[in-house]
Amino acid sequence: MKYGIALFPSKQIQDFANSYRKRYDSHYALIPPHITLKNVFEADDIQAQTIIKTLRQIAAETDVIPLKITKFSSFYPVNNVIYLKVEPNETLQELYKKLHSGVLTDQSDYTFVPHITIGRNLSDAEYFDVFGRLKMQTVHFEETADRFHLLYQLEDGAWTVYETFLLGKDRE
Amino acid sequence: MKYGIALFPSKQIQDFANSYRKRYDSHYALIPPHITLKNVFEADDIQAQTIIKTLRQIAAETDVIPLKITKFSSFYPVNNVIYLKVEPNETLQELYKKLHSGVLTDQSDYTFVPHITIGRNLSDAEYFDVFGRLKMQTVHFEETADRFHLLYQLEDGAWTVYETFLLGKDRE
Repeated sequence: MKYGIALFPSKQIQDFANSYRKRYDSHYALIPPHITLKNVFEADDIQAQTIIKTLRQIAAETDVIPLKITKFSSFYPVNNVIYLKVEPNETLQELYKKLHSGVLTDQSDYTFVPHITIGRNLSDAEYFDVFGRLKMQTVHFEETADRFHLLYQLEDGAWTVYETFLLGKDRE
Repeated sequence: MKYGIALFPSKQIQDFANSYRKRYDSHYALIPPHITLKNVFEADDIQAQTIIKTLRQIAAETDVIPLKITKFSSFYPVNNVIYLKVEPNETLQELYKKLHSGVLTDQSDYTFVPHITIGRNLSDAEYFDVFGRLKMQTVHFEETADRFHLLYQLEDGAWTVYETFLLGKDRE
């Protein structure tokens, strides 16, 4: 089965992101607005059980995560993805690192650029038009994330949440 | 914020349900295939915290749930909803009851008919055509559900999972 790990920001940020995604993001209907913490990976049922135990442990020893969003940005010229930029911070980086170590090690050698995609698969003309307007816009969200989710992918490409992992060393 | 409580069946059942939902269910893009355990309800942040504590307690004291699906059925003539019928059982009924008692009490006086919707808002002609074919079909799924989810609704109607609750008195 195909799994992925994501963090859902608050409803407020999701609603804001969706107001763009519905027009510009072809994945709009497949998953709510999210920060990808680990890209799609394959695991069988046995592997998944090991991974879930590891994720519980990682969550328990990871602090809640400050999320600060200050602007629109894009991966151009690599691709035409437009996103809400999430300011990197140590806790988020540390979590990302743990989600790519031990049983969770994979071939990924990307630098982690935390973001919430709001547009993709745009033509060049549309990309320049849309991003030209968005990059001038002021955006400001600050909140604290206290959970992340393991999801699996259905045949049609949509994602279902399998389990929530609550962050925080001092959780009740 | 608007919340709801649902149970997601396995990927196998979800893929099967989606093969119909993509054609017949106008909510296809809003939520993966699911069994509704508690209909949409309103709660503020403080209420939500109380509810979440209650749900953790309910989950801890509820056994895993056998799910058996044997046929397509429909709510006609009340409405044109077509669904996969989930055989009622005591554990499921008991969970439903707990999710409508105490702080979770609401005005709902429906009988609980556990089901996975695969079609809705069909015209009468389409309903008779589709259901006429589906009711002849043999369906057989049996599995065990070991979790349910609290979800909240975004402005566009889509649902995001907030938290997973693991069932089982004897969980490790």
